[in-house]
Amino acid sequence: MRLAELSARSGVSTATIKYYLREGLLPPGRRVNATQSSYDEGHLRKLRLVRAMVQVGRMPVATVREVLRTVDDESLDHHTRLGVAVSALPHGAGEPPATDPATEEAARRVADELLAGMGWSPVHEEGTELPAYRMLVAALTRLAGFGYPWDVEHLAPYARLARQLAVTDLDHVERYGSPEEQMEAAVALTVLYEPVLLGLRRLADVMESHRRFTGAPGATEG
Amino acid sequence: MRLAELSARSGVSTATIKYYLREGLLPPGRRVNATQSSYDEGHLRKLRLVRAMVQVGRMPVATVREVLRTVDDESLDHHTRLGVAVSALPHGAGEPPATDPATEEAARRVADELLAGMGWSPVHEEGTELPAYRMLVAALTRLAGFGYPWDVEHLAPYARLARQLAVTDLDHVERYGSPEEQMEAAVALTVLYEPVLLGLRRLADVMESHRRFTGAPGATEG
Repeated sequence: MRLAELSARSGVSTATIKYYLREGLLPPGRRVNATQSSYDEGHLRKLRLVRAMVQVGRMPVATVREVLRTVDDESLDHHTRLGVAVSALPHGAGEPPATDPATEEAARRVADELLAGMGWSPVHEEGTELPAYRMLVAALTRLAGFGYPWDVEHLAPYARLARQLAVTDLDHVERYGSPEEQMEAAVALTVLYEPVLLGLRRLADVMESHRRFTGAPGATEG
Repeated sequence: MRLAELSARSGVSTATIKYYLREGLLPPGRRVNATQSSYDEGHLRKLRLVRAMVQVGRMPVATVREVLRTVDDESLDHHTRLGVAVSALPHGAGEPPATDPATEEAARRVADELLAGMGWSPVHEEGTELPAYRMLVAALTRLAGFGYPWDVEHLAPYARLARQLAVTDLDHVERYGSPEEQMEAAVALTVLYEPVLLGLRRLADVMESHRRFTGAPGATEG
């Protein structure tokens, strides 16, 4: 297919595709004449993955390039290739809390104990921390800073629910066919379902609070 | 207690307390002489609630003032007083998606069907939409814009997990004694547990992906 069709089928503008080509995030097409190239289904799949990482996941181009090197490394197993993209996602909206080294160290111990209790440790590969782990430690530090509970007993029910969320997430990802499509879906759905989940939780909080404190079956009055 | 002690016990600076007093978010203390006032436990509770709404929840001062009017209205039931603060929380990091009225209308129908299926409708009070509902609609519109699934079948498992999250949330809130403390906890824990939840979900995704695609019991190699 020509560039225009690649753009139409991916929903990515031709200017953005040309930028990805220049940056080496997308392999060049097959040259058909001096000014035109031809692209195939492989380009389309790769383009959707790049878009998921750059536009949805907001990964820096250098990180995307690094992830793509792993994705294309056929000596690696499926999990490593799938997990690397999700693991590389920057850790969202959480601005760093006011740094107090002692509190952060304590938060790190609580996080480690929590994850060990879930059978999730060690979560660190090759001496680097996962962005999701730093996100958790920052959130605990912030809870501590404001004086709210952040002990393992309070946190464990959330970790157990997170495990159920992950089962749902991966069920969705496995509906996609190729490893590249699964990777694209894993990145995109990890990020795009975050506000869905937070919105639903807040609605559920309002409903549950109504149920408990008024004895009503669940709905507020219209 | 004097202003300095109120500051020490609440963790809010004296300058910020004076600002809350000027803005009428905190009732004046009892005058002890020309330059000093005395504050009681009621001030401390109210101050922590205001801090939760302003500093943690990032509510505009005008909204906080409005919520406090409801909080102090003893003719209202406990739920209404508790729910109003959480309901008034601004809807987080979700920037508005590129507006396409038809898609947004479709997203609204999907959200309504989803919530009706949970027994959560109507979620609107007095013709206004809850911020959490707008947050959900914006997230669905964004999913649609990127071409990922946003149908009720995909969303329903997340809504069911959100209900379980709310049960955990409200269990935490009920550990607090007075209605004011419960309200403060509800606002603070709703907001501060969001990054905890998202971090845990991302870690769980990495672990679950490892479990499925390598057959390992749950941990990655150190």
